Amino acid sequence: MNRLKLRQELERFFIEDIATADLTSQLLFKSDQIGTGRLLMKEEGIFAGEQIVREGFNLISEEIKVEFHVRDGASLVQGETLATLEGPVVSILEGERVILNLIQRMSGIATMTHHATKLVEGSEIKICDTRKTTPGLRMFEKYAVRCGGGVNHRLTLDGGVMIKDNHIAMFGSIENGVQHVRQALGPMTKIEVETESAAQVKAAVEAKADIIMFDNRSPSEIKEMVELVPDHIATEASGGITLDTLADYKDCGVQFISLGALTHSVKGLDISLELEVD
Amino acid sequence: MNRLKLRQELERFFIEDIATADLTSQLLFKSDQIGTGRLLMKEEGIFAGEQIVREGFNLISEEIKVEFHVRDGASLVQGETLATLEGPVVSILEGERVILNLIQRMSGIATMTHHATKLVEGSEIKICDTRKTTPGLRMFEKYAVRCGGGVNHRLTLDGGVMIKDNHIAMFGSIENGVQHVRQALGPMTKIEVETESAAQVKAAVEAKADIIMFDNRSPSEIKEMVELVPDHIATEASGGITLDTLADYKDCGVQFISLGALTHSVKGLDISLELEVD
Amino acid sequence: MNRLKLRQELERFFIEDIATADLTSQLLFKSDQIGTGRLLMKEEGIFAGEQIVREGFNLISEEIKVEFHVRDGASLVQGETLATLEGPVVSILEGERVILNLIQRMSGIATMTHHATKLVEGSEIKICDTRKTTPGLRMFEKYAVRCGGGVNHRLTLDGGVMIKDNHIAMFGSIENGVQHVRQALGPMTKIEVETESAAQVKAAVEAKADIIMFDNRSPSEIKEMVELVPDHIATEASGGITLDTLADYKDCGVQFISLGALTHSVKGLDISLELEVD
Amino acid sequence: MNRLKLRQELERFFIEDIATADLTSQLLFKSDQIGTGRLLMKEEGIFAGEQIVREGFNLISEEIKVEFHVRDGASLVQGETLATLEGPVVSILEGERVILNLIQRMSGIATMTHHATKLVEGSEIKICDTRKTTPGLRMFEKYAVRCGGGVNHRLTLDGGVMIKDNHIAMFGSIENGVQHVRQALGPMTKIEVETESAAQVKAAVEAKADIIMFDNRSPSEIKEMVELVPDHIATEASGGITLDTLADYKDCGVQFISLGALTHSVKGLDISLELEVD
Amino acid sequence: MNRLKLRQELERFFIEDIATADLTSQLLFKSDQIGTGRLLMKEEGIFAGEQIVREGFNLISEEIKVEFHVRDGASLVQGETLATLEGPVVSILEGERVILNLIQRMSGIATMTHHATKLVEGSEIKICDTRKTTPGLRMFEKYAVRCGGGVNHRLTLDGGVMIKDNHIAMFGSIENGVQHVRQALGPMTKIEVETESAAQVKAAVEAKADIIMFDNRSPSEIKEMVELVPDHIATEASGGITLDTLADYKDCGVQFISLGALTHSVKGLDISLELEVD
Amino acid sequence: MNRLKLRQELERFFIEDIATADLTSQLLFKSDQIGTGRLLMKEEGIFAGEQIVREGFNLISEEIKVEFHVRDGASLVQGETLATLEGPVVSILEGERVILNLIQRMSGIATMTHHATKLVEGSEIKICDTRKTTPGLRMFEKYAVRCGGGVNHRLTLDGGVMIKDNHIAMFGSIENGVQHVRQALGPMTKIEVETESAAQVKAAVEAKADIIMFDNRSPSEIKEMVELVPDHIATEASGGITLDTLADYKDCGVQFISLGALTHSVKGLDISLELEVD
Repeated sequence: MNRLKLRQELERFFIEDIATADLTSQLLFKSDQIGTGRLLMKEEGIFAGEQIVREGFNLISEEIKVEFHVRDGASLVQGETLATLEGPVVSILEGERVILNLIQRMSGIATMTHHATKLVEGSEIKICDTRKTTPGLRMFEKYAVRCGGGVNHRLTLDGGVMIKDNHIAMFGSIENGVQHVRQALGPMTKIEVETESAAQVKAAVEAKADIIMFDNRSPSEIKEMVELVPDHIATEASGGITLDTLADYKDCGVQFISLGALTHSVKGLDISLELEVD
Repeated sequence: MNRLKLRQELERFFIEDIATADLTSQLLFKSDQIGTGRLLMKEEGIFAGEQIVREGFNLISEEIKVEFHVRDGASLVQGETLATLEGPVVSILEGERVILNLIQRMSGIATMTHHATKLVEGSEIKICDTRKTTPGLRMFEKYAVRCGGGVNHRLTLDGGVMIKDNHIAMFGSIENGVQHVRQALGPMTKIEVETESAAQVKAAVEAKADIIMFDNRSPSEIKEMVELVPDHIATEASGGITLDTLADYKDCGVQFISLGALTHSVKGLDISLELEVD
Repeated sequence: MNRLKLRQELERFFIEDIATADLTSQLLFKSDQIGTGRLLMKEEGIFAGEQIVREGFNLISEEIKVEFHVRDGASLVQGETLATLEGPVVSILEGERVILNLIQRMSGIATMTHHATKLVEGSEIKICDTRKTTPGLRMFEKYAVRCGGGVNHRLTLDGGVMIKDNHIAMFGSIENGVQHVRQALGPMTKIEVETESAAQVKAAVEAKADIIMFDNRSPSEIKEMVELVPDHIATEASGGITLDTLADYKDCGVQFISLGALTHSVKGLDISLELEVD
Repeated sequence: MNRLKLRQELERFFIEDIATADLTSQLLFKSDQIGTGRLLMKEEGIFAGEQIVREGFNLISEEIKVEFHVRDGASLVQGETLATLEGPVVSILEGERVILNLIQRMSGIATMTHHATKLVEGSEIKICDTRKTTPGLRMFEKYAVRCGGGVNHRLTLDGGVMIKDNHIAMFGSIENGVQHVRQALGPMTKIEVETESAAQVKAAVEAKADIIMFDNRSPSEIKEMVELVPDHIATEASGGITLDTLADYKDCGVQFISLGALTHSVKGLDISLELEVD
Repeated sequence: MNRLKLRQELERFFIEDIATADLTSQLLFKSDQIGTGRLLMKEEGIFAGEQIVREGFNLISEEIKVEFHVRDGASLVQGETLATLEGPVVSILEGERVILNLIQRMSGIATMTHHATKLVEGSEIKICDTRKTTPGLRMFEKYAVRCGGGVNHRLTLDGGVMIKDNHIAMFGSIENGVQHVRQALGPMTKIEVETESAAQVKAAVEAKADIIMFDNRSPSEIKEMVELVPDHIATEASGGITLDTLADYKDCGVQFISLGALTHSVKGLDISLELEVD
Repeated sequence: MNRLKLRQELERFFIEDIATADLTSQLLFKSDQIGTGRLLMKEEGIFAGEQIVREGFNLISEEIKVEFHVRDGASLVQGETLATLEGPVVSILEGERVILNLIQRMSGIATMTHHATKLVEGSEIKICDTRKTTPGLRMFEKYAVRCGGGVNHRLTLDGGVMIKDNHIAMFGSIENGVQHVRQALGPMTKIEVETESAAQVKAAVEAKADIIMFDNRSPSEIKEMVELVPDHIATEASGGITLDTLADYKDCGVQFISLGALTHSVKGLDISLELEVD
């Protein structure tokens, strides 16, 4: 993640939580009281967020020292220590809640993504996110998906074109639509076409789409549609696929499966900070 | 919610998603093409987010007209129409994803909160949130909790003092701790003391705490502890209570029960926007 | 004060003053010229602003070293040295004006607050500020009040509820008003009721207000009204009390007296920076 | 004042005060309740801040209508109505405090400035402010000085050069210093030289300074020093002049007298908003 | 261009230019003086910037009415009127300079891009920009390239991967490098490989690069290298190509030619605003 | 340049370019890979931007060490090394493009300004910029003009008054206009009057303008007009003067000549960063 952007965001998050002062800590601890803390996994899962912990505590106070024992993407068991920290108690407490809120969410996403990749293990399928991210947290959540072994779909609306059926209606045919769009695009920007039938897949291939998406299709339908697509065009299954049904798609031959739930319906992973005042 | 702050945040969220342009819509629709849309509940639940939809689309284009058929906090069935909109298709599509991401999350929170209140129905207990909110979304999530029938715990670290056991250790006794803090506080700021035993509850009452929290206590323990607290001191149960165990606390006599899961582990409610190009 | 917020604000203040460059210093001093400076009290009073001086000069240049000889809240005589500094002359001059502007104002507030506390010395009364702070400086001014021995009333409009007479009119009775509001509030938020008569005080007590304010009442009126309020409800006198009349309230038995003038009509304390070029 | 900058600042001020919501008004008034208000002078003085009232309430809600009866700079008696407003009660109350805080301060500055101009009435002297403004409010306070009949000294550190004695020491002579600086400046930027003796004034004239300041000089000293300055060089008296001593300078012949107190030690003018719920 | 982002940027630009006030206009015109203006081409070229003019003047004052006679991308002769405006003279003058500065630059870019496309007319080659844009203006400049008939290369560093020779060295072979990267990418992100020889081109084709760039190659070299690339892989010529040499590349068979000069060395197009006070 | 403002701007520029991550570098280099780089002049010219390089790379990573061999304003030949750097390869690559974009532009401006000063060498004329700067870059571009040996005209619209013919029309005479404006100004603010004839020059002298500008006049006309202006009033030639015609003005006797092209039509100077991975 871009460190400058990361620090800007963390600064906003801390100010949101602290407002003008951490009243409790300032009234109850002396500013030179030192403590040591351990970041602990309270349940098993994939960790994501080392940079959050490092930059976050560093923003609060440069006197807090952080030592990490694992890396982002590590698969950890319950009770494992992620990192140890040492520094002024008031500062550690000031930053604790926001940092936990963020890494719990990110680790929850990484863990769910990892779980999804396990469900298609053995195939070539990559698990992919969507734009259904929490407003304000896209960079963090897209990063967490990568920590869990997934890959990212487009990051922003200017990062690619997706042609859907009502677009196609407008241009008469997939071919017209793709051609019209291709005209305006440079070499780095891809065109994805959503298809719901073999005929549409053929038209998209004909139109030289860069990616063909099978929208709300069953595994067996996809299996047939994939056959129509040459190697150099990417394929994606999307729409209505959940962790419950994902395994059914394992052998359908598609390259990418995108799941909105990775980011819109996440259970935070239970991580705690145990602090001892020296 | 504070409209000025709300619009600032929405502006940031839209820019995060759109970046420099909504390539797809701009290439595929004419700027004067008008469409009508319906916001639909795809599953039953409590809606939260009218202001998001109104201010959000208004920020994108003042030409989008929004008409709402329900109010925040309404309990809705699957298939119900929340609102209808009309305006330039490119503008509606530009704003759609961010607005849905936000109201799905907020409605998910409202629905979970409502569910929690149902579990203690018949008692005087109020369901309360925590500071375990998504970084950057505290205002939105605290508001959603209210839409679901819950109430808010402190909004920021300067909004109240919470004295825990390691604080108490530091001051020798609860009484010393509370007195030390009270000294520095004005009339509007409350002191909450976390307790784990009857002795601590008595000490907190003695110390004139404003709120006494029963930390990780069973319903029967709480029942006894509550007895020790005079009417004018508020009581709160917190720690390890989930939707699965909440009903057990229904008759324990406490005034507030706070649940972190209301905001840290939410399933977005399924809401969609169906758009027709005129 | 929240260091992150403080640094953000100081950055804005410096940019407001410097704009693109401190022309004078850059044209007249070499960048490696070192100087030593002393912050001096030019009149007696209470100092507030150590963090401003430390973080402010640190923002301008990490090469400036600051050593403080007093603490915030110290009562100082004319001519006393607050702090000594050493560093690049251009940097010290670049930061000087903004830092002085801010600590002079803050120390003025602390001094006036301290003066107010002296006027009620011997009683239990605490001196309290209001929301009549300088726009943009609330955190700084509320902090300065604390340095002077005062306490803070609510920090923001979401930090408590204040029910006034026209609100009461709307709800028929104080009891209805308080109950209606209480419904929507969590454990940390207090309700204050403004009263002007014994009847209203009784009603507010009945309604279980958290704080009862005596609005524009004379010391003797307040003395009688206070009698009606049980111990666990806070009491506040407000409206039209100035430093000239404050002493009259010393024995009225109220807990808090709030004074708008502490922040809206302050004479900056005269503090200067004497700089010697090495 | 620059409207875009003004609105940005007002937005920050409102968010500082309101935070996430005006709890009291939202709980006690319906959103469609209309009220009418009058801005009233509670004491006599010079008003400054029409744009604050207009843009401020407009930011809060476009439904608030404001009608002004006076203009900035008007000299008003106690009891006079400045403006009338009509709109949603919740919105008027949400904006009230910040707008009052700002116009009370600005009108206090305008009134003090006006008072100062009266003290030198009959002479050609113009009253001038300094950089001793409240951090964050320079635009507002400099504007208020103009409303009171004063003029502005430089707005920012890049808006002019001021050469003081320790600068002069560095360059051996005033002439060297001025020449060195002149070299680097374009046509719009002025050089002011601080002088304390006739010899220094002569040197500054020789050096072709644009402005000669008499630093901490008595009226009679200034009278003699002014004689040495040709017409096309501006003259300014500064340092230690207060409203108490200002009248003594009336006949000293200087063009500008600058007073730090205009902005650093202001008593807010008492202005109130009387609101009636329709 | 994203309207919300555009308005944010314009606001910053206006504040940069105006600072606290447009002194001249405010002192010399009455606020209700109306004027009409014409935006005029003082030399022939391609116009880009309608949205700047519309949103820019709208930000300054909603009372300014703008009517446009041409569209972005139009090829115009000297003396042609782009748009007419009417509104308060002070407001038009306040916004004039910033708006001209921006549309002159954007139209300069559009004109140079158009000129480049003319030099390869008859071929299939598309003219492409680079990341050598003016800091802070990427959205504006990339848009202007499109107005001139060019297309955009990646917008940001997260919008695509470019593998250069020192990267290749690191991974032993192009194939290893591409494979390593592909692993981590989702469907929307392309990999471009820079090549300098036929062998490298072959390796890049083998490695399934999405785009193959011919770095600093002559037209005849490119002609041969292009032959080695299958249809579905995009080709780009880059490095050292200027408007002087561009025509030589017309028949080399490449799909994209990127030119840094389009944005880093632009002559602003001469556009003026002629204003008449009514 | 104001370091705080500079760092704020650089932060924005980096985030504009990098967005969420420098994908290429992060995928192809290890985070602990160290490299050394050299900033090289690829063509001769005047360098401007040391602070950009230092603060820019420092923002990206405090581990990057920069050593400079030249100073801003130095006249350099092709091939000369400006600076050497050492640090993490990923960080150097992350910052490279933005820093080059900025110093190439600034050095281009410095070089053009230097060229202009050479064309009037031997005279007393100073070369001056205008407000025709790139939106968002005024501080940087005005600084670059100074590096090239030029001086700055006003920085912002509140930094001076410029009276043009349509203003004069409004007030009947230059004298009335100047007097009206002078009234409202403090000692630091200058009034410049645009003139087109000897009569207007005389009137401006009479009116005690601070600067007299000869608008679109030929060298011989200016020569005559300058004669009419006393020494203490500055003179400026402006309008339609380019590098091609500048030499003709060398002996016209004016003090300042302002050139819009210095900032609105600049060719970036070719500077490159050669990086070796250790």
